[in-house]
Amino acid sequence: MAIRNAFYAQSGGVTSVINASACGVIETARRHRDQIGNVYAGRNGIVGALTEDLIDTAQESDQAIADLRHTPGGAFGSCRYKLKGLEENRAQYERLIEVFKAHDIGFFFYNGGGDSADTCLKVSQLSEKMGYPLCAIHIPKTVDNDLPITDNCPGFGSVAKYIAVSTREASFDVASMAATSTKIFVIEVMGRHAGWIAAAGGLAADQKRDIPLVILFPEIPFDQAKFLAAVDEKVKHYGYCSIVVSEGVKQAGGKFLADAGLKDAFGHTQLGGVAPVVVSIVKNELGYRCHWAVADYLQRAARHIASRTDAEQAYALGKTAVELALAGRNAVMPTIVRSSDSPYRWEIGHADLSDVANVEKKMPREFISSDGLGITDACRAYLLPLIEGEDYPPYKDGLPDYVVLKNASVPKKLTSQFAV
Amino acid sequence: MAIRNAFYAQSGGVTSVINASACGVIETARRHRDQIGNVYAGRNGIVGALTEDLIDTAQESDQAIADLRHTPGGAFGSCRYKLKGLEENRAQYERLIEVFKAHDIGFFFYNGGGDSADTCLKVSQLSEKMGYPLCAIHIPKTVDNDLPITDNCPGFGSVAKYIAVSTREASFDVASMAATSTKIFVIEVMGRHAGWIAAAGGLAADQKRDIPLVILFPEIPFDQAKFLAAVDEKVKHYGYCSIVVSEGVKQAGGKFLADAGLKDAFGHTQLGGVAPVVVSIVKNELGYRCHWAVADYLQRAARHIASRTDAEQAYALGKTAVELALAGRNAVMPTIVRSSDSPYRWEIGHADLSDVANVEKKMPREFISSDGLGITDACRAYLLPLIEGEDYPPYKDGLPDYVVLKNASVPKKLTSQFAV
Repeated sequence: MAIRNAFYAQSGGVTSVINASACGVIETARRHRDQIGNVYAGRNGIVGALTEDLIDTAQESDQAIADLRHTPGGAFGSCRYKLKGLEENRAQYERLIEVFKAHDIGFFFYNGGGDSADTCLKVSQLSEKMGYPLCAIHIPKTVDNDLPITDNCPGFGSVAKYIAVSTREASFDVASMAATSTKIFVIEVMGRHAGWIAAAGGLAADQKRDIPLVILFPEIPFDQAKFLAAVDEKVKHYGYCSIVVSEGVKQAGGKFLADAGLKDAFGHTQLGGVAPVVVSIVKNELGYRCHWAVADYLQRAARHIASRTDAEQAYALGKTAVELALAGRNAVMPTIVRSSDSPYRWEIGHADLSDVANVEKKMPREFISSDGLGITDACRAYLLPLIEGEDYPPYKDGLPDYVVLKNASVPKKLTSQFAV
Repeated sequence: MAIRNAFYAQSGGVTSVINASACGVIETARRHRDQIGNVYAGRNGIVGALTEDLIDTAQESDQAIADLRHTPGGAFGSCRYKLKGLEENRAQYERLIEVFKAHDIGFFFYNGGGDSADTCLKVSQLSEKMGYPLCAIHIPKTVDNDLPITDNCPGFGSVAKYIAVSTREASFDVASMAATSTKIFVIEVMGRHAGWIAAAGGLAADQKRDIPLVILFPEIPFDQAKFLAAVDEKVKHYGYCSIVVSEGVKQAGGKFLADAGLKDAFGHTQLGGVAPVVVSIVKNELGYRCHWAVADYLQRAARHIASRTDAEQAYALGKTAVELALAGRNAVMPTIVRSSDSPYRWEIGHADLSDVANVEKKMPREFISSDGLGITDACRAYLLPLIEGEDYPPYKDGLPDYVVLKNASVPKKLTSQFAV
């Protein structure tokens, strides 16, 4: 088998462990130098492939690559750039093949969510049609946890851990203040379409810590009266209440609750920020003093409190992606297969990309309590293993010692430009 | 010396290490049972003393007290309740003495910020006038870092670490997204009157990680043109920019920038939330895509990423408070005395409360860069030791195993009520 190069790219919103997958890909490729030459990374994801802006990872030391395992963000740059359908814009796909050919790339590793699984599949199909031998493997990643087949998506477990820990901590805080001051704490979490992350807030409470929580899921239309009654009941019983609200919560009519609300000084509707809207409602209707936080990027970048399970799975998926490629598999995605909740047992399997692309995993209704404002034991059993274990990065001067790569460019071989 | 009881109360906004001071007080008192009987804690701070609502800490196991050291929030409840001046409301102070007398309390440990130092001093003065022997010691605590004499205030170092770490992490995230999506990340931090916490955001960048940061301090009136020019310059050079904004940033006229902004659906001005105001300005004037986070309670409750230095100092101050009391000192506050920046050397000293009460420590102007939008090397040298070291809590089921105390009540001895 001739030695060919590999291309790796990160896609969409980054996570605290996507670089652990990159680490798994590159370290494993380096152990198979008889089959894989250089690993080129796309600068800013697939855009780097289209513009022939490749990063030469061979110029990074083994230590720098090892450090990726504990570094958040996307070390080579990611992008929000969705390739159009094959019929709509065949030129994009042909350009990818052209660049791959120029750099003798025989392996395409695409690390992303649902859209990139679809892109990966199309690239694989086109390369076959064009008679260009290419092994295309998708590596799952998304804090949204919405890819099918795989038990969970790398990045999600660490966000879940961050939100569970933060909600517990802030609840301890508001509990202390409630007698004379703040009685309500609201935390806004990511999840435009699914309540997986919001559900993780429910883990803040357990048998030892009876924390009063109300969770607002995107799956459950916002019912103001029911919500206020639940909050008021908690405050009357416990003295305080913590509220976890998904950015994607919608009113009964389908409009985002976040858009129901704020206007800036210029009269523009303020996009995002459902937490202040929830606070407005509670303050105006119940009169309780509130505090609110918006976790935003903090939640998905918080490598300092990553789940060890998540970091291990992210690495294992990157490693397996290379092993699948070397075994000649094409158009597949390595997956996490759960065989037991407690103790959590998992192994790496794989799925055909045709079964993954354009399928969205929803949160099961039975994971949400019947009143729509909390999680069930089934949800807890699913989530708990995913936040298990800590995997602290090394520290220097009181701060995590995250690596910044050199990211040296591979000299261009094509004279043609491509506008993205 | 007769054995007398001690009273301990937490005051004002809680921190991730105020319970470490409580732990220092109670463990040290337990080692001196020949001089200190029970330690009673005020339920919800000084309100518990006024209403004779005392918690019997003797009913907590040694393990539970030890666990306080790694548990955030105020384990006995805190309060926002400022005692009035002695002349205005002598009855409050007399009531305190009455309750202390009823429970044979000879030691008064008050754990709080500037207001509670003042209260502690007044209680001491009145007890003397009333001929009631009482040893009153103030234990410093405030994330605002605004108490005089002491090198820093327990709680601040851990918030500083949280903000520095979070800003670094989110900056890695936005750097990855900037080519095709978000170019600006804004994090709003606490600090209504002083920029200590905002300054900590400046630690996110260092020689190895050249992160473009713009910091908005409450000490520097907001200059929109200058601010936008700085942000734009960073984006043009680095591709992105992180902005750390203190909740206390004011416009030139002295009005809070946060109040310049949002109105809710009912037309009410939305209090708090300067981050979305900053985002509005950047988006409207520069057109960059922005993300924003509001850390709020998360920053001061984040025991999972506490500074080891901070946790050690908080404990040491609680311990020393008891030792000072046993040495017969009265109306004093143990302090942190810095003798060297690097390596950081500190010891515990003490100050007279008359020198502490009603004095606010401001951030020196030379800690802010000349353009008003960053920190200086002097600031860095002051801050870095305070975030040094990690002090992870124990974990169970993927979450920090924070203790919840029994908080059993001490039977009341007085028949009189006191309205607060």
